[in-house]
Order: sequence, then C-alpha cells, then structure tokens
Amino acid sequence: MSGEPRLRVDVIHGPNLQLLGTREVQVYGTTSLAEIDARLIELGEELAVDVHSFQSNHEGEILDHLGSLGGVADGILINPAGLTHTSVALGDGVAGVGIPTVEVHLSNTATRESFRHHSYVASVAVGVVAGFGWRSYLLGLRALVGQLRDASS
Amino acid sequence: MSGEPRLRVDVIHGPNLQLLGTREVQVYGTTSLAEIDARLIELGEELAVDVHSFQSNHEGEILDHLGSLGGVADGILINPAGLTHTSVALGDGVAGVGIPTVEVHLSNTATRESFRHHSYVASVAVGVVAGFGWRSYLLGLRALVGQLRDASS
Amino acid sequence: MSGEPRLRVDVIHGPNLQLLGTREVQVYGTTSLAEIDARLIELGEELAVDVHSFQSNHEGEILDHLGSLGGVADGILINPAGLTHTSVALGDGVAGVGIPTVEVHLSNTATRESFRHHSYVASVAVGVVAGFGWRSYLLGLRALVGQLRDASS
Amino acid sequence: MSGEPRLRVDVIHGPNLQLLGTREVQVYGTTSLAEIDARLIELGEELAVDVHSFQSNHEGEILDHLGSLGGVADGILINPAGLTHTSVALGDGVAGVGIPTVEVHLSNTATRESFRHHSYVASVAVGVVAGFGWRSYLLGLRALVGQLRDASS
Amino acid sequence: MSGEPRLRVDVIHGPNLQLLGTREVQVYGTTSLAEIDARLIELGEELAVDVHSFQSNHEGEILDHLGSLGGVADGILINPAGLTHTSVALGDGVAGVGIPTVEVHLSNTATRESFRHHSYVASVAVGVVAGFGWRSYLLGLRALVGQLRDASS
Amino acid sequence: MSGEPRLRVDVIHGPNLQLLGTREVQVYGTTSLAEIDARLIELGEELAVDVHSFQSNHEGEILDHLGSLGGVADGILINPAGLTHTSVALGDGVAGVGIPTVEVHLSNTATRESFRHHSYVASVAVGVVAGFGWRSYLLGLRALVGQLRDASS
Amino acid sequence: MSGEPRLRVDVIHGPNLQLLGTREVQVYGTTSLAEIDARLIELGEELAVDVHSFQSNHEGEILDHLGSLGGVADGILINPAGLTHTSVALGDGVAGVGIPTVEVHLSNTATRESFRHHSYVASVAVGVVAGFGWRSYLLGLRALVGQLRDASS
Amino acid sequence: MSGEPRLRVDVIHGPNLQLLGTREVQVYGTTSLAEIDARLIELGEELAVDVHSFQSNHEGEILDHLGSLGGVADGILINPAGLTHTSVALGDGVAGVGIPTVEVHLSNTATRESFRHHSYVASVAVGVVAGFGWRSYLLGLRALVGQLRDASS
Amino acid sequence: MSGEPRLRVDVIHGPNLQLLGTREVQVYGTTSLAEIDARLIELGEELAVDVHSFQSNHEGEILDHLGSLGGVADGILINPAGLTHTSVALGDGVAGVGIPTVEVHLSNTATRESFRHHSYVASVAVGVVAGFGWRSYLLGLRALVGQLRDASS
Amino acid sequence: MSGEPRLRVDVIHGPNLQLLGTREVQVYGTTSLAEIDARLIELGEELAVDVHSFQSNHEGEILDHLGSLGGVADGILINPAGLTHTSVALGDGVAGVGIPTVEVHLSNTATRESFRHHSYVASVAVGVVAGFGWRSYLLGLRALVGQLRDASS
Amino acid sequence: MSGEPRLRVDVIHGPNLQLLGTREVQVYGTTSLAEIDARLIELGEELAVDVHSFQSNHEGEILDHLGSLGGVADGILINPAGLTHTSVALGDGVAGVGIPTVEVHLSNTATRESFRHHSYVASVAVGVVAGFGWRSYLLGLRALVGQLRDASS
Amino acid sequence: MSGEPRLRVDVIHGPNLQLLGTREVQVYGTTSLAEIDARLIELGEELAVDVHSFQSNHEGEILDHLGSLGGVADGILINPAGLTHTSVALGDGVAGVGIPTVEVHLSNTATRESFRHHSYVASVAVGVVAGFGWRSYLLGLRALVGQLRDASS
Repeated sequence: MSGEPRLRVDVIHGPNLQLLGTREVQVYGTTSLAEIDARLIELGEELAVDVHSFQSNHEGEILDHLGSLGGVADGILINPAGLTHTSVALGDGVAGVGIPTVEVHLSNTATRESFRHHSYVASVAVGVVAGFGWRSYLLGLRALVGQLRDASS
Repeated sequence: MSGEPRLRVDVIHGPNLQLLGTREVQVYGTTSLAEIDARLIELGEELAVDVHSFQSNHEGEILDHLGSLGGVADGILINPAGLTHTSVALGDGVAGVGIPTVEVHLSNTATRESFRHHSYVASVAVGVVAGFGWRSYLLGLRALVGQLRDASS
Repeated sequence: MSGEPRLRVDVIHGPNLQLLGTREVQVYGTTSLAEIDARLIELGEELAVDVHSFQSNHEGEILDHLGSLGGVADGILINPAGLTHTSVALGDGVAGVGIPTVEVHLSNTATRESFRHHSYVASVAVGVVAGFGWRSYLLGLRALVGQLRDASS
Repeated sequence: MSGEPRLRVDVIHGPNLQLLGTREVQVYGTTSLAEIDARLIELGEELAVDVHSFQSNHEGEILDHLGSLGGVADGILINPAGLTHTSVALGDGVAGVGIPTVEVHLSNTATRESFRHHSYVASVAVGVVAGFGWRSYLLGLRALVGQLRDASS
Repeated sequence: MSGEPRLRVDVIHGPNLQLLGTREVQVYGTTSLAEIDARLIELGEELAVDVHSFQSNHEGEILDHLGSLGGVADGILINPAGLTHTSVALGDGVAGVGIPTVEVHLSNTATRESFRHHSYVASVAVGVVAGFGWRSYLLGLRALVGQLRDASS
Repeated sequence: MSGEPRLRVDVIHGPNLQLLGTREVQVYGTTSLAEIDARLIELGEELAVDVHSFQSNHEGEILDHLGSLGGVADGILINPAGLTHTSVALGDGVAGVGIPTVEVHLSNTATRESFRHHSYVASVAVGVVAGFGWRSYLLGLRALVGQLRDASS
Repeated sequence: MSGEPRLRVDVIHGPNLQLLGTREVQVYGTTSLAEIDARLIELGEELAVDVHSFQSNHEGEILDHLGSLGGVADGILINPAGLTHTSVALGDGVAGVGIPTVEVHLSNTATRESFRHHSYVASVAVGVVAGFGWRSYLLGLRALVGQLRDASS
Repeated sequence: MSGEPRLRVDVIHGPNLQLLGTREVQVYGTTSLAEIDARLIELGEELAVDVHSFQSNHEGEILDHLGSLGGVADGILINPAGLTHTSVALGDGVAGVGIPTVEVHLSNTATRESFRHHSYVASVAVGVVAGFGWRSYLLGLRALVGQLRDASS
Repeated sequence: MSGEPRLRVDVIHGPNLQLLGTREVQVYGTTSLAEIDARLIELGEELAVDVHSFQSNHEGEILDHLGSLGGVADGILINPAGLTHTSVALGDGVAGVGIPTVEVHLSNTATRESFRHHSYVASVAVGVVAGFGWRSYLLGLRALVGQLRDASS
Repeated sequence: MSGEPRLRVDVIHGPNLQLLGTREVQVYGTTSLAEIDARLIELGEELAVDVHSFQSNHEGEILDHLGSLGGVADGILINPAGLTHTSVALGDGVAGVGIPTVEVHLSNTATRESFRHHSYVASVAVGVVAGFGWRSYLLGLRALVGQLRDASS
Repeated sequence: MSGEPRLRVDVIHGPNLQLLGTREVQVYGTTSLAEIDARLIELGEELAVDVHSFQSNHEGEILDHLGSLGGVADGILINPAGLTHTSVALGDGVAGVGIPTVEVHLSNTATRESFRHHSYVASVAVGVVAGFGWRSYLLGLRALVGQLRDASS
Repeated sequence: MSGEPRLRVDVIHGPNLQLLGTREVQVYGTTSLAEIDARLIELGEELAVDVHSFQSNHEGEILDHLGSLGGVADGILINPAGLTHTSVALGDGVAGVGIPTVEVHLSNTATRESFRHHSYVASVAVGVVAGFGWRSYLLGLRALVGQLRDASS
C-alpha cells in the first residue's frame, strides 16, 4: 500500500456516543470512544489514511461539520446513532457534500426495535457495517478505503 | 420525611417551552416556565429534594445535559415537548444515562394529533403524567420522588 | 384547604384488579386493592374529598355505575385495566356522564404490548397517570382534585 | 295492512342509551329512550307489529336476550351503540339467532371518529339506518317490517 | 301534514342505475328505476313533497345538476352508486350546494367488498339508509322530510 | 394412568355457545354443549381428571370465574368464542390466574374472516386446537392433561 | 419583459369551481371564478401572456380539452379541485400532453382531510401553489411564466 | 373457423388513448389508435368476428356505451387506461352488463407506480393481457374469442 | 403600494441550505443562498417590505430564532428543508409564535421520496409554494405579503 | 375400533426438523424426530392407521411427495415449519392433492414473532394443533383420524 | 413468417403444475401439462419457434435451469405458479439471465386471494397474460415471439 | 495471530450467485464467485482460518448444508441473496445450528426495492456487511473471525 496516495477520512460519531464504554455496556461494550478513535488512527496508519474524528450530540453541528468537509475529506465514516432513523436532514447533508460515506453501527440494528430498521443515511451511503461493536468502525474504515482506492485507480 | 436523605432531581424542559404562558394559552395555560420552576422548588423543599431546572430548544444541548447528569442527579423529570414523538436520540440519551426518569406533558396528548400518541421517551421512563397543565410537573415530581424513596429504602 | 367545599370522587377499578397483590406481582406489585382504597381514603381526608371505590369485572356494571354518578360525583378516577384498549362503550360512558375523569394505570403501558398503547378513555379524560404502581392512584386523585378546585374557583 | 298477520319485533338498545335525552344532547338529541319506545309502539300499531324493547349496558345480557328470541321474534331492531365497533360476540349472536335484524344509529357514524366506521353487526344485518336521531328507529322499524312482509308473502 | 308547506326534493341516481331491474337482479332486485321514481312520487304526495328525479352515468352531469339546485331544492336524496367510494368531487359538490342530503343504497354495502365501506358523500350527508332495495329510497325520503320539517318548525 | 394424582380441569365456554347444536349447524355442527360436556367428563374419567364446565355470555362472569379458580383448578380449557379476538381483559384474566390454559375452537378460524385470525388468549395459553368441531375440546383436554402430567412429573 | 415572445397559458378550473364565491365562503372566499379569470388576464397582460380559461365539472371534458392543447398552449395552470386526489386519468392527461403545468389550490390542502394530502397531478407538474385563495392562481401564473421564460432563454 | 357463427366484439378505449402514437412514445409506442383499430378489424376478419371500436375520455360515456351493449355484443375488449385503478363505477358497469370482458394494457402495469397495480375491472373480467403495446389488443381479442367459442360450443 | 405600512418579513432557511448552488445542482439549481436573499430584498423593496434572512443547520437555533420574532416580524417565510418532514418541534414553534407563515421548497416534493410528502409545518402555515427553485421564495414572499395586506386592511 | 377399515396417514415434517432434539431444546424440546415418528406409529396401531413419515428441507421435495399421495393416503399430517408462513406453493400443493390435512406445530406460534402468525397451509387444512411439543403430532393424528372416520361413516 | 430466423423459446412450469388436469379442475381446467406442451409445440411450428418445456416443483431447479439458458434461449415463457408471489430469488433469476420473459397464469389472479395480486416476476418481465386457462400459454407465446421479432428486426 | 488456534469458517452463497461476474455487472460487479472464494481463502490463510465455500440455488440444499455444520464449523459467512427477504426456514436454520453467523451482501440493499430492506437472517446473525461488492465477503470474514477470537479468548 506504500505507493498509493495518502487519503483523509473523517469519522463522525453521533448523539450519546460520548458515553460509550460507560453506558449500557451489555449492549454497546466497554470500549470508550477515545479507544475507538485510537484504533482507527492505528489502522489508518496501516492503510496510509489520515483519520480525523468528531463527536457531537447536535444534529446541527454534524451538518455544519459535514458541510465543511467538501474538498477536504476523501471519505466519511459515520455512526449516526439515534439520528440514523429520524434525520432526513442528515441524509440530505451526506448527499449534499458528495463524499463517499460508509455507515457503521455498534449493535445489530436488525435485532432491535422496529424503528431502528430504517436509515435515512444508508440510502445515500456506499454501504453499511453493523453489529460488531468497536470492530464495526475498523471494518467500515477498511471498506471505505477499499472503495476509495478502487475509484482512484 | 425528615429522616430521609436529600435527593437531587433535574428538570428538563424541551423545545418551545420558553414561550410558556405567552403562546397558545388556550392549550398550554398562562403559567410561565419560571412559575413552574418556582413551584417545583417549593414542592422540592417539602419533599427534601433539590430541584434544578434546564430548558433548551436544542436536542443536542439536552443530550449534552443528560450525559452530564450521570452520578449527579438522583432522578430526572422531563417534558420533551415536540421531541417526544420524533427523537430516538433523546430516548437513547435517557436510557444511556441510566437515571430514573418521569415524563410529563402539559396537555393530554391522547386528545391531540395522532403523531403525538407515541413517545420515544416513555418506553425508557418509569412512567408518564399528562394533561394537568403545570400540575403535571408537580405530580411528576411526587411520582419520581416516591419511586426513588422506595428504591432506596 | 380547610375553607374549600368538600368534594366527592368515585374511584372505578376495572377487570381483574380484584386479584391485585396476588397476581403477577412482578408487574403489578404486592399492594392489594383494599390497601389502595385505604390510601385513597386517607389522602381524600387530607384533601377534603370523600372517596368511594367500586370494582367490577363487568363492563356493563361499570357503565351502570358510571351512569348513576351524574349529579352525585364531582370527579371520577378510573383504572379501566384491559377495557382501556377495547371498550368504545366505556369511552362513551365517560363522555356521557360528563364528570371530569382522570385515567390511571399501575404499569407504564408504553413499555408493554402495542395493543396497550391506545386508550378509548384517555381521549375523553382530563389526563392520564401511568407507571407508578399504587402511587398512580394517589397522584391521579391529586391531579383530579387540583383540576376540580381550579374549575370551581 | 289489516289482512296481514301480526308480527313481533324486538328492539335492543345497547350501552349508555339509558342516558338518552340527558347526555350530550347536542349529539344525541333530547328525546328519551322511553319516548322512543313509545313512538315505536305507536308505529307498531300502525304496522300491525307488537314491539318489545330492551336496554342493557351488558354485552352478556344482550347476548342472553338475543339467544332467547329464537322462535319468539320475527325481526330485531338493534342500536348496538359502542358495542357496534368492538363486539365480535354481538355479531356472532345476531348471526346465531338467525332472525332478520336491522341496525340503527342516532348519529351519522360516518362523520365521527374513524373507529366508528366499522360495524361487526352490519355485516350480518339486513341493512342500516344512521343519522336521523330518534327517527332512525322509526325508519328502521319500517324497513324491517317491509322486509318481513316481503319475505312472508 | 296538511298545514305544512310543500317541499321539493330532488332525487339523484348515480352510474349504472339506469340498468336497474335488468342487471344482477340477485343483488339489486327486479324493480326498475322508473318504478322507484313512481313510488317516490306517490310517497311524496303523501308527505306533501314534490319529487324530481335525475339519473346520470356522468359524474360531471351530476355535479352540474347539484350546482343548479341551490335555491331550488329543499332536500336531496342521492344514491351515488359506484361514485360513493371514489368521488371527492361529489362530496365537495354536496357540501358546496349546502342543501340537506340523505344517502341511500339498494344493497347493504357493509357486506360487500371492503372498497365499498367508505363513502365520500356520507361525511357531508345528514344520514344514510342502506340495504333495503327500493325501500331504501322511500325510507330515505321519509328521513329527509322528517329532518326538513323539524328544521323548518 | 392409575398411579397418577387426580387432576381438576375447568372448562370455560364463551359467548353464544349455549346455542350450540341449534345455531348455524353448517358451521358449528349439531352437537350440543351438554353433549360436549358429557364427552369431556367421560374422557376425564379415562384420564383421571375431574372436569367442571361453565358457560357464560358475560365477559365479566368469565373473569369472575377465572379469578375464583386460583388454587382450585390444575388446568383450564377455554373456548373464548367471539371474545377471543376482542378481549384484552380475558387475556389478562388468564395470565393473572396463572393456571395452564389451552384454547380450543370448534371451527378453523384461519379460514374465516381476518378479524378472527388474532387471539388475545393464545398468547398467554400453552397452545391452541382449532377446527375439529366438538373433538377440539377432547383434543384440548388431552393436550392440557399431557402438559400437566409432564410438569408434575 | 417587452422583448420576450408572447406566451399562451391555458387555465383549467376543475369540478364545483363554478360555484366559487357563492359556496362555503369561509373556506374558499367570496371571489367568483369570473373575477379570478379577469385578474389572471390582467396579470397576463403585465407578463405578456395570453390567458385562456376553461371550467368543467366533467373529468372527460377536461381530458378532451387537455388533449387539444398540444402545440397550442405554452403552459397550463390547473386547479383540479376534487379530481386532484382521485383522477389517475387527469395525471395521465397532463403527462400525455407534455406541456409545463402548475397546480394551484385555493385552500391549504395540508390542513384538511387526509385524503386531500395526495395529488395525482402534482407528481407530473412543475410545482404547486396552495393556500392563498384567489392569489394562488396569480402566483401560479407568475411561477409558470418564470419557468417558461427560463426554459426558452 | 368457417363453420362457427360470426361474433361481435366491442372494443372500448379509455381516457387519453386518443393521443396514442403522439404522446409519451417511449412508454406507449408510435402506433395510433386508428392503426390498432384497423389491426383489430383485420384480425377480426380472420377470426370471423365483427369488431366495433369506441374511445372516450368520459367515464360516463363509457358507462352509457357499456349499458347499451346488452344483447348486442358477444364480448368486450377494454383498455380502461387511467380509470382502471380508480373507477368502481366502471367495474360495476362491466359486471352489470354481463358480457364476457377482457382487459388489456399497452404497458406492463406491474413495473409502474404502485397505484397502477390494482384494477377495479380485472376482478370482473375473464382475464388480463398487459405489456405488449398494440399487440396486447390483438392478443386480448384472440383470448376473448377463444373463451366465447369455448362457451358456445 | 406606497400608501401601505411597511412590513417586516423574516426568512428562515433550514439545514444544508448553506450549500445551495454548490451541491446537487441538478436538483436544487446553481443559485446561491446569498443570491436568493438578495432577490428577496430586492422584491421586498418593491413590496415595501423589510426582509431579514437567517440560515441554520440547527433545529434549536431556528426555534430560538422563531421564539424571538414575536412582536418583531409581521410574517415568516420558511424553507424548513429536511426538518419539514421530521420536526414536530418546528411545527410547534411556528404555531407557538403565532405569526403568519408561508412554507416554500425549491424542489417539487411531490415527485420525490414518499417521506417528503408530509410536512409538520404546512399544517400550521398559511400555504405552500414548491417546485420553482429560487422563484419559490419570491412567490412565497408575494403570497405572504398579499395575505398580510389583506388581513391588515 | 376393530371393525373400522384401516387408514393410511402420511406425516410430513418440514425444514430443519431433522435437527429436532438437538437444536434450541428450550424452544422445541429434547424429543428427536425418530422418537416422534415411533410414537406416531404406536398411536397409529392403536387407531388402526398405517403411519408413513417423510422429512425434507426442500419445498420442492415436499411438493413432489404431496403430489404422489393422491389415491394413496387417506389423510396428511403436516408440520410445515418455516414454510408455514412463506410458501404459497405449499398451500397450493395441499389444496391440489385434495386429501384431508391437519397442520401441527411444536411451539405455540401465537407467542412468537408476528411473521409466524399467518399460515398459508391452515387456510386449506381441516384444522390446527399448536404448542404441545411432540404431543402436537399425536393430537393431530387423533384429530385427523376422527375426521376421517366421521367422513367415511 | 418463412423468411424470419427460427427462434428458441423455453417454457417453464412452476410448482404443482404437474398435477394439471387432475387437480381442482373447476379452477384450472381439465387440460394436462402434456397437452399444453403439445399445443405450444404446434403453435411454435406455425411461428417458426422451437419450444422446449420444463416443469419443476423446486425453486432451485428452476433457478439452475434459468441460469443455464443464457446464450441458449431467445425468450422465456414462465408460469411461476405459487412462486410468483413469494420468490424474490425467481425474480432475481429472470433479471439475471437477461432474456425477454413473458409471465402467464391459468387463472385470473386478480379475482383470487389478495396475496396472489403481487408478482416478483412481473416486474422484470415484458408483460403478463392471465385468466385464459391453457390459452394463456399460447397467447403468451404469441406475445413473446411478437416482441422478439420486433426487437430483432 | 500465530499462537491462536486455527478456525474453520463455512461460506454459503445463495441463489443466482453462480452467475456472478456475468450477470447485471453494473449492479454486482465483474468479479466471479470463484475469484471471491479464492480471495476468501487467501485472507483465511492470513487469519489462520480454513475457508470452505458452498453455493446453491436450492433453499433445501442450503438447509441440509447448514444442518451438517454443527460441530464442524466455527463460524458461518452467508450471502443469502434473494432468500434473505423471504425465507423464514433459512433464519430458522441459522438459529438452529447455533454457530455464529455473519450476513453479507454485494449491493447496498437499503438503496434498492423496499422488499429488500428486511432480512430473516439478520435477526439471528451477529451482524451485517452490505454494499461493498466482493469486499463485503472479506470484511465479513474479518468481522466473523474477530468475534470468534474474542469469544474464545
């Protein structure tokens, strides 16, 4: 992977994920958000990717941030958390910025409440990884970088 | 109630409630939010409870606030207003912080539009009080404190 | 509250509530119906309210009883139990007798089967209190008396 | 009509109709049930029909009564009130006794809540008359007798 | 009824009713539209009502006709036939002309296909009579005249 | 089966079943309720089971009866008839009394109207037998006794 | 606007609009259809547009008329009234003739019955203007001409 | 086919089909209605069938026409176009006239908007042919004549 | 328009509209938000209206802003973008501030995904303009001012 | 039962049932398919019935087998397992072979996921037995043989 | 047709069709599958088409077969029988092989159970012929060949 | 990874995937199934995993295969293709065998037809990877192995 151009991937963590590792550990596991970010950076190094992370409980801040990534990021990795199922604006924001985006979830949303089975982001994303805890992020990063390397080759 | 340990209850008022007493008074009554907070504090004194109030029109601020209450509040009293029916993130935030929560509504939502008949918060709350105007808050505080005293006894 | 006129509130307990305290205690608690009635009478004394209680497993008896309360009761406190979700006639009976009515539930119906999320009574009631076990009744009585005192002042 | 054999029609009034004339007069009018029964008897005389009336708030009593009419009544005129929309057992009872039945309603159910738009009785009845206050009963009796005279001729 | 002012009622027969008595006689009976109109005129004489009949297969013609009845007819008796379930414009036309209207049906629509269970006309009509063959019209005329006499008295 | 302790099974027949054998025989057959009860007693003898039968058209009486069976019956065999599909209270009553219950139906409800495809009782019952006329009861009794013998062994 | 080529816009008024200004004035206002047409012609002069108006209660006549506009009109302004929500053929007719079309409504259909929330025409129109009484037509004409001028420039 | 009696088939073309060959040719093809009629006559000759064609944009005219075919036509071939999905009256008209009818569509309605997936005519027709452009008519004629020859043999 | 009092209209642009002119230009056009605001100001001058614009990606900021407009703005022009379909709080905020509001959309939402067919704002707005790109705003301003001038005259 | 002609009953076990006794024993019990077949043969002996069993995970093999049973089997006992809820072809196959069929289930499907509440087989079966583990098969065999003996007597 | 290149059409008969002519003859007729194949071959000769037939009760075999037809068949004629309504894989298989396909049905599925009104195959087929018994196949072959000849000319 | 015990993962490819690389390449890409299997084996080597692949168009064969993996495979990687959305039996088979399973899809099913948005397998799987073409398999293998290593450590 040495000969390939370095990429930038922005990771966006949605609402309540600041509590990760401390809340409902039987559902979400004990790994904190900082640990996930560290592992993403580590994997990014392996894949020649600069990883930048951002967390917010505010839909509006996430939209501001998304809007600012045009011409900056090569790809986006997003865990929209509770906004996944309710935010048309977030889907519009991802579509609007026009950067390849991969959606990830810690839990397997298909086994949870029916209102978690629909995503406004998935329909404008490249693909989805769900159910593997913190590994969903690492798999999502691999997936995204694979797609980006293909497209640029 | 003198022998019981003092409790802390945080009250969260959702979107548009800053307008209370001035807007649509035929639906929501003429009592302002400040008056409600004053009555809650007064009842709190009677019940040996410290009451702290917070209002925001921002889902994100409410989630930030909820996230900060872990280990701080003994119970939460929330009127999620319009977010009641649309915010999966708010339900997740309440579940995430893991503090007993009571949901209150000024109006009887069962008599209003059908989109107000479902609550993403109620399913993670202890219970619900709706339809009694500003009294819903006082009743909700009594309900919450009763539950907390039981659990701690 | 000494100067206020004494009020009469009739409490109506719906189907299967005669089993309270002996059935499914993990859901409904161990307090019996007689104990709830005693606590209501006690709170009634505090609030200058005469409390009369009635339980029936028969929708028809409840309707007969409701129909007999016109001009007799100042307010009604009702836990319609299973009839909540299925009896149009009960909703009609409450509307027909024209006395302010508060609906209470022991459990938080929002966390149970979806067929328990709709109430034919709530849409003709003043408001609803649900999820606080036997306390729902006491809170409901407070709520009802508050409304009645307001209306009569 | 003198040469035609005398018929017997049983009228069944469902839940809450004992309150007629005193409750919600803007919806149901000021005519009492006794007055309606008197007018039905009067029209029965004109049509050579013996009219017997029965009111109950109890689904079970209505089913007992229906079950007793086999071989006794020539036709049934029923206002099932709130049971119209919820009682499969009532529809089964009407079908089971096998006597021509006409359903009547005081109000025009098509202009009311959507849960009043379906009837478990109508699908086993000869026909329906709705919306004409106490006149619905008289029209229903005429309709029923017309059908019975046709069938017997 | 001699002292009461004479009324004018316009009868409107909807699509395919020109075939009455010749088509699907097991469903609609053997009485022709002309015979129904004759019986309506005869009953009209008894009730001091001038009856005018109109049939069309064209929704537009029925709307033209309805629009022309303002200030002309005292009441309208309509069998909208297949348009009952599909024509918002017909419901608007009835509402627009502002004349008391009774809806009648030959068959008991509640026992037929589910698409026949909703009526765009019933929600703007005084009431509905259905299921008594040609008698539905006579009953409908009686119902309408009763309502008109009440209103004018 | 001689060495096994004798059991008590209470049979509950719901609304309109008193008409059995005389009503709609093409659907429900010609066997009367008394004959079914006799056959159940006969089979009970074979299985070392005391069978007690009860029929009521009143939901309330059935609930009273259910409530009285706690500590009395070992098992319940119920044909809820029309209440099957509409009575949340009946499902609650079965759950509340906490005795193993088998639901039976004379007809195959899956081949009838769609509103007969859901049962509020089945979800709290051990199992269901439907479609075999009076034999459904005998099969249900065998099923119930089999379950009870297993559980007690 | 002087240098721009003159355009022809055909206005189509649907069912019951001939009653405008005389019917349900609290909903539709007191302006007559002739007045609306006059104001459209006046605005047409200002915008260098020849305005031709047509009203019919007949879906078929509207379709005939639409079909005749091919190669004649540059744009169509249509208030389909009650046909909006029920006429697939009207949507097909608009699509078939292939002329840019703007849909207008006097009332704000979003605040009315749910069956008025869907339009078979809107999905083949350029856009929609609703809720401004007679002004909806003038705004619709401006909208249409703006689009036509853009497209032709 | 020489020995078989000559048949008469009436072809009915619904709304907007007068535009065929000029409108939306990518969907409906370039063949005009006159060409289709000519090919139907030609095939009719081959099959010993007199073919009569009729087109109207007016539901009412089609119903008038259908009503006039009793005792005249041996079979009907109909493309109800947009009325397919919305006209209960058209289904009633086809059922009422009692002549074997085949429904045809130029396009494959199963691949279009979901509102085109239901037909009020198909449920009273012999069968349906859809998706083969002008050939749908010729296939429909063959299908109809086949059925008619079978039935008459 | 010179003699009329000057009005103030506040324009609110919802989420992602800051990207206008740069994102998805095939859907939303190439005009930037600044250009739209400039044209609104220009038209405002013509109509004697002071136009103030505000854009935010934050539902909460929009609600704060709305709440601050009471007694300040005469009318509101809002493009709620993705919040249109999901924000009960926004609809409540518009209703709460009690200022006449017009909803506008750049695209014709009726031709897009079904989740864009419902608006929580439209039901509390005066009316809606959708589908005309940047012109929707100008048309909306004209519509709003027309309504305001009427109401104040 | 000695004098009655011997019958042949074919038992069909659907997908995954080969795993019985080893998989999910908390749901399906520890009895293996071979044990169930042995018990069926044993009961068959008692009832003068030859029992033949067949298991397949292949819908096609089950259909082949069903098709081969015409004129061979007197009755069919089927546990369609997962195909119950999804296979129209299986329902068609049962209807097509025209042999009385009883459907059985090990578990009480009414207490499981909602997609298990509908059966394509039940609507063409004599009846259903569900919820009694391996006993469901024995009860089903008794039910089937009872029906066959009745029909042949 | 002599000068046209010979074509190959593969006919696929789905589940249970091996029973044709012996099962439910009132629904499907008395013609056997072999007879249908013979008539298809005969018509194929007339149309210069080689017809190959295949029947299977196994979805998997049909998919294997479909997969093998790439580069072999010019067109496919398929009666998917019960798989029509349930097999996404069959629709995928038809789409995957990329050969023009016509769907046929013996019965008029529009007049049968509602679960037969949707087809996963129709949405990837050229068109559909339904309701004409064995003739549906011959008409389908004509339809298919017509389309193929057009496309190749 | 050298010290970790070697694992066995079985890959299951569902219906139509044998066509991969040759069919609908714009949707599914040009990589063949053999190439995917080769890459999985290669990655397996890296992860110390033996990879065994299996493809079938037959639901029954897949179920047979699944049933045979008990005690053999450590994990399962499955692309159920069209069976994903329709096969309850497949979900039951995965649950029954009790081996950790990861579901993968080549395409992003969230962007396709709505019937592809539900999976009967996902609710019994560990998690899902969708939308990354052949990479979905490699990511799924990594995800599965990660979970297995965690669980065994």
